Amino acid sequence: MSSPNVAVIGATGAVGQVALQILEERAFPMNSLRLCASPSSVGKKITFRGVEIEVETPTESLFKDTDIAFIAAGSSLSKIYAPLAASLDCIAIDKSSAFRMDPKVPLVVPEINANDIWAHEGIISVPNCSTTQMVMALSPLHDVNPIRRVVVDTYQSVSGTGKAAMEELQVQSSQILEGLPIKPEAYPHQIAFNALPQVETFLDDGYTTEERKMRDETRKILHSDSINISATCVRIPVPISHSEALHIEFEKPMSPSEARSLLSSFSGATVLDDPFDSKYPLASSATGRDDVFVGRIRADDSHPNGLVMWVVSDNLRKGAATNGIQIAEEIINKDHSA
Amino acid sequence: MSSPNVAVIGATGAVGQVALQILEERAFPMNSLRLCASPSSVGKKITFRGVEIEVETPTESLFKDTDIAFIAAGSSLSKIYAPLAASLDCIAIDKSSAFRMDPKVPLVVPEINANDIWAHEGIISVPNCSTTQMVMALSPLHDVNPIRRVVVDTYQSVSGTGKAAMEELQVQSSQILEGLPIKPEAYPHQIAFNALPQVETFLDDGYTTEERKMRDETRKILHSDSINISATCVRIPVPISHSEALHIEFEKPMSPSEARSLLSSFSGATVLDDPFDSKYPLASSATGRDDVFVGRIRADDSHPNGLVMWVVSDNLRKGAATNGIQIAEEIINKDHSA
Repeated sequence: MSSPNVAVIGATGAVGQVALQILEERAFPMNSLRLCASPSSVGKKITFRGVEIEVETPTESLFKDTDIAFIAAGSSLSKIYAPLAASLDCIAIDKSSAFRMDPKVPLVVPEINANDIWAHEGIISVPNCSTTQMVMALSPLHDVNPIRRVVVDTYQSVSGTGKAAMEELQVQSSQILEGLPIKPEAYPHQIAFNALPQVETFLDDGYTTEERKMRDETRKILHSDSINISATCVRIPVPISHSEALHIEFEKPMSPSEARSLLSSFSGATVLDDPFDSKYPLASSATGRDDVFVGRIRADDSHPNGLVMWVVSDNLRKGAATNGIQIAEEIINKDHSA
Repeated sequence: MSSPNVAVIGATGAVGQVALQILEERAFPMNSLRLCASPSSVGKKITFRGVEIEVETPTESLFKDTDIAFIAAGSSLSKIYAPLAASLDCIAIDKSSAFRMDPKVPLVVPEINANDIWAHEGIISVPNCSTTQMVMALSPLHDVNPIRRVVVDTYQSVSGTGKAAMEELQVQSSQILEGLPIKPEAYPHQIAFNALPQVETFLDDGYTTEERKMRDETRKILHSDSINISATCVRIPVPISHSEALHIEFEKPMSPSEARSLLSSFSGATVLDDPFDSKYPLASSATGRDDVFVGRIRADDSHPNGLVMWVVSDNLRKGAATNGIQIAEEIINKDHSA
């Protein structure tokens, strides 16, 4: 599969459009590209590498002719299309949460657990965006000093909800600046100039599904069921890129300089940590970049084995599309080298 | 002092203007009111209870004729005016950080440690806004089950920086929505549609002065040097009201229902905790109100004695002006009842 037939399901969505950009940027090797979206977008034309491609409906015959399908169309559609693709020998790289905790489905951040890919049975899941950037910061540290517990609070952008929410943030911001009334639709409350302590839906124990994912997916990716994680996930009025405050408790003490050194040499992570020069990761500067940015690394003076840090990443790229495409590259390279 | 002569120093600033509103709302008893501000505002007229008051420069003679001065003009001016007032038998209720950690100066949240007021020697400090709303949520719980450690991440509004920052958020938001270039002035980076992991200035250990205040002031207010606190303070594009995610570790387990009950019966706190009905504290709805709002109260499943909660309060009111005025009311009522 050195030059696969590729399909993007959800090609007109926030993640799908970034996926197309990244496939272009990375000169992803492919024999053909087909683009699918919901009925309302079918027939639209999208230019890719200078060629117009017509958006179509995903069908059995399409998956038959496809080697790798990137699916970013929401959980309910993933539940239909990912198993269909897999049954027709097309590998489904799925962005949704539908299969992430399925023991038969690898959940992969290639820098961390690329080897898990090879156990796949046709579906490989891309982790939740908040989880991916957190495990990218945790993994190189955990490898040398096991992590016992993480307290994490997030500052999540609206693009995680999709294009309609991005549009709503813009429109609502303008309305508020002009003193006009607003009508929340993408969220239960006003998102412009506000902070919503709700990302996704509530569970009986008071956590949200998003907060639960950060715990469960991290354990699966790091192969460590003993890591305790308590998250509060918060939506803030930022278009793209999530920020996270991490408070990490290790088995033994770890100095900030050791953490900086481990993170600096970890592929996909960039340390940006010169606070006296006002240098730390920011949503505004991480957007459009593939790396996970880590800064404000300091000893946690409230815990003997603690470290505190600030982690920012483009949730549409490393948090979604880039990570999915990296998984596909692993598959292509392996097949190529085999 | 049943009807004191009052002065507001910094009357044209963000906190000063809210203080004037609150003095009106609460029908604060006073014999006279004088308003002071920087030279550029001297001569301006401000209407209070239907009467125009001319803004003047604070002088020795003014403090001589004043019983209570609310000072909200920044640390460097507080360092001049608070001791001057105190030396002239005028009680200085100071919003700045200048004297908060001075052992001779009470640091007071009246619902928690009103009795500390009576040790004053002419200056009483109002705590940092982020600290006040946190200790309001911690205190009733700590009283029945000592708190060992708190991890707190903040979502702070720009009004904490002052009126220029509030104006900058508005202008910058409009510029970005219109695709125009921006020029950060109040902060080192773009604040609109961004999250800045810097509130105030950095210390050598990597924490900021704001983060350090949340630890040190909490210990002083709760009279407990053993509480460990690790904070990450973050500025987000919200005009007024700070939000905070607290992860609290107690000596013994505490159930969410016990915490809700303790907080519900604590004066100045309001529990707003019905997540399935999308009810939780929000900056947009806390603004203009005096209470500290607490919600998303849940057992921390990463710690046997842990609780997680979300705390929101108007930083200009309970975080600043209201708390100062409550201190003055304690003084007036005590003198009146004595």
